[in-house]
Amino acid sequence: MIARPTIRAFESSPDRGRGLARDFPVRWALEEVGQPYDVHLVTFKEMKEPEHRALQPFGQIPTYQEDDLSLFESAAIILRIAETHPGLLPTDDNARSRAIAWMFAAKATVEPVIVEREAAMLLERDKPWFDARMPNMEDRVRGRLTDLSNRLGQADWLDSDFSAGDLLMINVLRRPAATPLLDERLVAYVARGEARPAFKRAFEAQHDVFLAASREQAQ
Amino acid sequence: MIARPTIRAFESSPDRGRGLARDFPVRWALEEVGQPYDVHLVTFKEMKEPEHRALQPFGQIPTYQEDDLSLFESAAIILRIAETHPGLLPTDDNARSRAIAWMFAAKATVEPVIVEREAAMLLERDKPWFDARMPNMEDRVRGRLTDLSNRLGQADWLDSDFSAGDLLMINVLRRPAATPLLDERLVAYVARGEARPAFKRAFEAQHDVFLAASREQAQ
Repeated sequence: MIARPTIRAFESSPDRGRGLARDFPVRWALEEVGQPYDVHLVTFKEMKEPEHRALQPFGQIPTYQEDDLSLFESAAIILRIAETHPGLLPTDDNARSRAIAWMFAAKATVEPVIVEREAAMLLERDKPWFDARMPNMEDRVRGRLTDLSNRLGQADWLDSDFSAGDLLMINVLRRPAATPLLDERLVAYVARGEARPAFKRAFEAQHDVFLAASREQAQ
Repeated sequence: MIARPTIRAFESSPDRGRGLARDFPVRWALEEVGQPYDVHLVTFKEMKEPEHRALQPFGQIPTYQEDDLSLFESAAIILRIAETHPGLLPTDDNARSRAIAWMFAAKATVEPVIVEREAAMLLERDKPWFDARMPNMEDRVRGRLTDLSNRLGQADWLDSDFSAGDLLMINVLRRPAATPLLDERLVAYVARGEARPAFKRAFEAQHDVFLAASREQAQ
């Protein structure tokens, strides 16, 4: 156990509490290792102000504060949590490096093509070129997903036991721009992640924030 | 020192030896820590074959092999090198986590918007929508670069001493889709990276591969 950390998350998440905001994988990691944490909610306006940018130079969430350490980038926060608690990385040095490779693969190889499709679906749906561009974007996502599915094969997780690499990969596969393109094997892989008690606790925690924000708006 | 590792790189790099292929930052990291290495060159055809995909599930380069460890994802390889040699990560635990956060920021926050602009410039230049989409893509790149420049401020490197975070960030800022959009401060930051003797040695090494491939084609 370390000093109780504080994370920053959306006061009113645009994902409507579906576990798609970027604080979610950090919450999931904290739940996996049994580390209690506090949450400091920020508005979109506050995210762009100097006080928040001192913690997060790109004006995003989440951030992570623990004693005199302040971190940003969800994957880096999760790696820190994994390094200071057992449960998210293998103890063998080589297996640990392979798990970290899957963390980077999730963020640098799989997520960008999914986020690009998502951005087009959100921002360019009414543009005259939308229909012409979409097949290429889908092909790029499918290419990565096919490679991932082939590597996973019949295994439960990407490299022996569940690790922070699986956590980040499952987190990105849950994005709506990816889910319709998952094959059966990847659907089952995501379902294994979502069935973990830590996933459920993290999901409830971020969903409660959304419900509270909705009640407040309704009053 | 560890067992002499082998990396895989393009036999004939599409970047024409300008240090833009993804083996480049791995070479740079190996040079920074003074670790000799071997290079196994692969053709585009070989990259898609099962023997290579066993090492790199997405059929890309680079890969890294060291005794019985096989790794992929350039940033994960660089983190492994940094963890097994002094020189690329601070020894203080908190400073080390912050340097790793910059590694993830380079790959997950800065690189994707640059690569998206690059892909459009390569693949959609002749499309009717190219001129309409380009300003938005440039704005997204500029937004990230402005935030990065503001955080860097008057410092030489992102978090006190040069680290693997600077190495990966400078590596992505060197991409042609980013360079015309860098402000003076980031131009100077990239120049500081390029002035490092290890950068120059890595640049020469990958450039020599390109020259050798060109000579072979000319014969």
